[in-house]
Amino acid sequence: MKDLICIDEWKIIQKNFDKENNRIYESLMSTGNGYMGMRGNFEESYSGDSLRGSYVAGIYYPDKTRVGWWKNGYPDYFAKVLNSTYLIGIKIFLNDFELDLNTCTIKDFYRELNMKEGYIKRSFIISKDNNEVKCDVIRFVSMDIKDMICIKYDITPLSDDLKVSFIPYLDGDVRNEDSNYDEIFWNEIARGFNDSGSAYLTVQTKKLDFFVTSTMDIKLFLDGHQREFNSDDSSDYMHVSKKVDVNLNKDHTASLEKYVSLVSNRYTSKEDLITKGNEILISSMETGFDSLFLNHKNKWDEIWEDSDIIVEGDLKAQQGIRYNIFQLNCTYTGEDERLNIGPKGFSGEKYGGATYWDTEAYCINFYLSTAPEKVARQLLIYRYRHLNYAKENAKKLGLKGALYPMVTMNGEECHNEWEITFEEIHRNGAIAYAIFNYIRYTGDKNYLIEYGAEVLIEISRFWASRVSFSKRKNKYVILGVTGPNEYENNVNNNWYTNKLAAWCLKYTMEVIDLVKEMDENAYNILKERLSFDDEELKVWSDIALHMHFPWIDDLGIFEQQDGFMDKEIVPASSLPKEDLPINQHWSWDRILRSPFIKQADVLQGMYFFGDEYSICEKKKHFDFYEPLTVHESSLSPCVHCILAAELGYEEKAYDLYLRTSRLDLDDYNNDTSDGLHITSMAGTWMSFVHGFGGLRVKNDLLNLSPMIPSNWIGYSFRIMFRNNLVKISVTKESIEIELLNGKGLKIVIFQSEYILTNNGNTKLRIKN
Amino acid sequence: MKDLICIDEWKIIQKNFDKENNRIYESLMSTGNGYMGMRGNFEESYSGDSLRGSYVAGIYYPDKTRVGWWKNGYPDYFAKVLNSTYLIGIKIFLNDFELDLNTCTIKDFYRELNMKEGYIKRSFIISKDNNEVKCDVIRFVSMDIKDMICIKYDITPLSDDLKVSFIPYLDGDVRNEDSNYDEIFWNEIARGFNDSGSAYLTVQTKKLDFFVTSTMDIKLFLDGHQREFNSDDSSDYMHVSKKVDVNLNKDHTASLEKYVSLVSNRYTSKEDLITKGNEILISSMETGFDSLFLNHKNKWDEIWEDSDIIVEGDLKAQQGIRYNIFQLNCTYTGEDERLNIGPKGFSGEKYGGATYWDTEAYCINFYLSTAPEKVARQLLIYRYRHLNYAKENAKKLGLKGALYPMVTMNGEECHNEWEITFEEIHRNGAIAYAIFNYIRYTGDKNYLIEYGAEVLIEISRFWASRVSFSKRKNKYVILGVTGPNEYENNVNNNWYTNKLAAWCLKYTMEVIDLVKEMDENAYNILKERLSFDDEELKVWSDIALHMHFPWIDDLGIFEQQDGFMDKEIVPASSLPKEDLPINQHWSWDRILRSPFIKQADVLQGMYFFGDEYSICEKKKHFDFYEPLTVHESSLSPCVHCILAAELGYEEKAYDLYLRTSRLDLDDYNNDTSDGLHITSMAGTWMSFVHGFGGLRVKNDLLNLSPMIPSNWIGYSFRIMFRNNLVKISVTKESIEIELLNGKGLKIVIFQSEYILTNNGNTKLRIKN
Repeated sequence: MKDLICIDEWKIIQKNFDKENNRIYESLMSTGNGYMGMRGNFEESYSGDSLRGSYVAGIYYPDKTRVGWWKNGYPDYFAKVLNSTYLIGIKIFLNDFELDLNTCTIKDFYRELNMKEGYIKRSFIISKDNNEVKCDVIRFVSMDIKDMICIKYDITPLSDDLKVSFIPYLDGDVRNEDSNYDEIFWNEIARGFNDSGSAYLTVQTKKLDFFVTSTMDIKLFLDGHQREFNSDDSSDYMHVSKKVDVNLNKDHTASLEKYVSLVSNRYTSKEDLITKGNEILISSMETGFDSLFLNHKNKWDEIWEDSDIIVEGDLKAQQGIRYNIFQLNCTYTGEDERLNIGPKGFSGEKYGGATYWDTEAYCINFYLSTAPEKVARQLLIYRYRHLNYAKENAKKLGLKGALYPMVTMNGEECHNEWEITFEEIHRNGAIAYAIFNYIRYTGDKNYLIEYGAEVLIEISRFWASRVSFSKRKNKYVILGVTGPNEYENNVNNNWYTNKLAAWCLKYTMEVIDLVKEMDENAYNILKERLSFDDEELKVWSDIALHMHFPWIDDLGIFEQQDGFMDKEIVPASSLPKEDLPINQHWSWDRILRSPFIKQADVLQGMYFFGDEYSICEKKKHFDFYEPLTVHESSLSPCVHCILAAELGYEEKAYDLYLRTSRLDLDDYNNDTSDGLHITSMAGTWMSFVHGFGGLRVKNDLLNLSPMIPSNWIGYSFRIMFRNNLVKISVTKESIEIELLNGKGLKIVIFQSEYILTNNGNTKLRIKN
Repeated sequence: MKDLICIDEWKIIQKNFDKENNRIYESLMSTGNGYMGMRGNFEESYSGDSLRGSYVAGIYYPDKTRVGWWKNGYPDYFAKVLNSTYLIGIKIFLNDFELDLNTCTIKDFYRELNMKEGYIKRSFIISKDNNEVKCDVIRFVSMDIKDMICIKYDITPLSDDLKVSFIPYLDGDVRNEDSNYDEIFWNEIARGFNDSGSAYLTVQTKKLDFFVTSTMDIKLFLDGHQREFNSDDSSDYMHVSKKVDVNLNKDHTASLEKYVSLVSNRYTSKEDLITKGNEILISSMETGFDSLFLNHKNKWDEIWEDSDIIVEGDLKAQQGIRYNIFQLNCTYTGEDERLNIGPKGFSGEKYGGATYWDTEAYCINFYLSTAPEKVARQLLIYRYRHLNYAKENAKKLGLKGALYPMVTMNGEECHNEWEITFEEIHRNGAIAYAIFNYIRYTGDKNYLIEYGAEVLIEISRFWASRVSFSKRKNKYVILGVTGPNEYENNVNNNWYTNKLAAWCLKYTMEVIDLVKEMDENAYNILKERLSFDDEELKVWSDIALHMHFPWIDDLGIFEQQDGFMDKEIVPASSLPKEDLPINQHWSWDRILRSPFIKQADVLQGMYFFGDEYSICEKKKHFDFYEPLTVHESSLSPCVHCILAAELGYEEKAYDLYLRTSRLDLDDYNNDTSDGLHITSMAGTWMSFVHGFGGLRVKNDLLNLSPMIPSNWIGYSFRIMFRNNLVKISVTKESIEIELLNGKGLKIVIFQSEYILTNNGNTKLRIKN
């Protein structure tokens, strides 16, 4: 845990320039708009340690993985998130000396990520030969015009007159840090200058034929007044630039506005890219920086209107939750059903791929509650579109039905560790659970007829072919799996996996009945198309009924997997600090034979199927498993926080909440330099709303059981539920519910029902 | 299984040129002398599919492995067997047209590996424009002068006069087929021509600084008479060559003798390599081809004198066993304690590394019985020299003592699959067992004082720190291992591993007592140096006494590992043929959750500790486990053959023997194209001598219980035992033992003792 930033309710502020932690700040200051994004790199050259990263959603590289040991069935490639054309670069020369914060003497350094309005602001004074120069920079990735990035770079000499040269450029000669042999993944296709004067660069991925055109142009201002200028245009392989020289008098300010548009053949035919990119650029420049900025800010206002969470009395907690909400909105906006939520968003390259089970188990909850129904639906349809790949994937493993990939970009599996790729099959259950969760939350049962039932049936077929029957146990067993706790590999009967599998089969049968009931015709078509029959359903029912669930008799709790209790059970608190995190210090076998749990496993199931277990049962499981958990997955603290809140473990809940909400801000896991933990940010949101707010949906009704950490004065959050926008405000004294928008709804608070309507009854307040 | 070669007692003969299977033949025709060796490539250019491979013992490349997913504790490199300078090349031009068997019309093709005398012979007639030319080639890697290779290439025009150009060359521009990104592993250091006229090429590995100098020169003969000639010398990067033109009349023969020496800085300082290489070459050329050949053949005679096995009435079996003995002798001769027995010998690149547990569990038996004591001792000392690396290796895993690597060249682990590297720890037991086996066979107890005890103590320390105590079982358990059956990963309590561990601890304590008894002073020094005490030994004793051994109650046999019986147990015979081998057709998870066994696991233990189990017990285990075994490790059939022979399962024993002995000759596993299964060849020898011959050593005495397959007339084998060379001949009627050399010994045949002496009583014959 590090102390990196100033505490502020809306801002992430860095007040001291810190070369050593520069990569961490670059990660923290990442911005995006769901279509593209970038790390918080500097515009000017920087010779210190840095990971320059710009990323475009959905553009990836199928990198070779056939290196080293190989197992039959492994995928041919690993989809790497592709570092693409560096868009923000502006070289700055001050009296012919190049500005580089790594070598200059700096004072009054200030950098801010403004979450409310979605921009980065930076200012500093550099001194060189007793000459001081002030620089102010603002940058935003437009939330309004998704293809646009705007930068304003101000330079003011404080001591003497100054010759300033701005060299804004586009640089396509980038490479991924995680490429195996320093390979370059891009070819140049075209570069040059449009008639309008803008510079463009079109690059193409060496595989898969993604084309990306970036176009840039500039405006120059002196003390706020736009000026004509001569630009010295030049271009070289993978590089286009302009150069503007300005002679500045002391205390006068030169401002360069750099406008960049980015278009790709994901949305525009490749022949039209240059024209299209320039059109967007020209029209944006006509609008101008200030208006573009205002429109951008207004979009962020709308986002916060639907999703803000306010904490009173705890700025750290406040900053944490807003940071998570901010980054989630930078990463995914739900407009394109081919996109998903990458684990690092636009903040880094690590892990590759875009889609993990994180989306279904965690992220979808955030989007269900803070965005229109359509957004969560897009996430489900994304998987529906990949069903054929999932069926191929199951076939490769000699199984029936569909097995969704562990990591994917386009539906194909692209991960190759056998214990994960082949064995971490609980992911398939999460995809079914997300359908259940979506229906439960939205009531959109038509989704099942259109898409959901088919996915569920194929998933159930997978489970039915994946179980085997143990004569000795006289039960169905699932051998050789890795559960959510990846610190156990190739185990038999991971309770969570078995539970999910049995539940999937039951739920699918319910859904089949429901479809039949709702639309007999649709049911018949489905039945014929997927050719299922009573015989098949009978088998499913038998499996669901006779699944083996490992059980620790003397403790009266489920056993994480067969044989878990043969381990020496010692709490994680007994681990020496220097061994933490164990995944950075211990060899894999040592981790595997230890009792330590990477992330919620049995408890994940207790959370998913909370209604099936009493508080007393949950407590017993929590008390046994939580002390063994090292939370070395960013997805772990949130689930524990939610359960702790439910069980009345207030302190534990609060600690875990802080850990999840400030995971990156305080670099808890010592890995923020690689990028942010985007998907776990949805977990943070869940900790808050499902944990402290106690939000559940039961029988089509919103249920709340709020609690409040003792050091807080109050908090409020907003959620969308079935077209109602509701604000929930909690203090130690009261719980207030306000209908901000919508026709009204019935709501359950601590088991009592209340009604909100849009005429008169928009607000209710009960004692806490 | 393929029908590739003619059956012959001493020869491997290919009568039809077969482009499709060329790589298989190249593997089969591999030759070597323990210092270097090569695949059976053609001397002349060949444009068809081929793996050109020359290898020098102990020269390897630590290739990068940090690609893809990574686990803490993985080694930094994978030691690749290094394809090195191509030594045998001779380009042939016939009237300016280049000889290339891939494009020529060929008749009377004949190729022979002569095992008795250790050479390759090839002849064929090519036709071009109605012109026929006969070629005859002989090549041997000298068993007498280990640095020399000699080739004789005869060309005879049969139809018309012919201009022949010979271009013998050395080519250092080679690469490994298994390099990750087509990397080149060699740099050129020097090339040129010595004053004597010979051409040389010195190359250096890009890592580790191995230097290799190859030097070549030629002689020309016309109809057997040596001729002067003008040679056109030329050289280019990584390439040196000579060129000789000869105008030949019809039916006259031009012969080119190519002499190549190879020296490396493993034995000669790098400054002296060129001089040394040329000295050896000059002296060899003075000796001349025929004498060199004769001396080489004499060495092979000596080898066969000590190790030949004769089968009467079954040519296939005869050819098989001789092929195995031949290749083992090509691979390892025991003169250099830094060398070991690579899994592919000099026949290919696959697997990398030189040393696996194969050496200790299998190969050592062959060398114990067919070579002077010193050879097996070298293999043990090899591991002694690596003890410090093994201690580091254990430390990396957070454990005490020594864990020997799974794969190594110099003692460092260089394998990186966690389930193998970290978990296949039974290898450590095999290293202890080899010490026990060596002492049992040779009686050389001094080895324990000098080296053995220290290795055993460090291995035992590893086991003592690797076990954990299960409260539930009230026993010591070993969690998270991979047994010899690699089709199970990360299992708990693999019976074989637990058994070996407990045995190691017990044996080490016995050895400590023995050392104390033999040499109190040595004992005290050892005790102080390794600082062990009674407390430590008490813990070992407790572990050995209270180890958990999984047990299948209703069958009354050991369970391969905890939970094995939860699988659906179906015999391997139920597998569809198109699924075999399953490791080429099934994804890894499917293999793991199946009941199919890759290689002997429980049965390996029954073989190692045969004295502890009754025939009835062994039978029960064999009857259960053998039907589940798919023998997809080349090391599997031999152990099953030995047990089958002991249990009187004659047919099974014979089938398994044929499978192991002709594994490569008939390409059983469909992978001979990659190279030969050298280490399993020792298993073949064991099948014969321990299986059919029933050889065991008990209480310092040689025990034999021969059986004979019903289709054989008789067989005989020779073994060395405590400085006696004994020939055992078995027919259906009699067993004859003859002392060929040595002072005599007591011998046990079917539980009865007999005495052989070197005066009078050299032979005994009993009824079978």
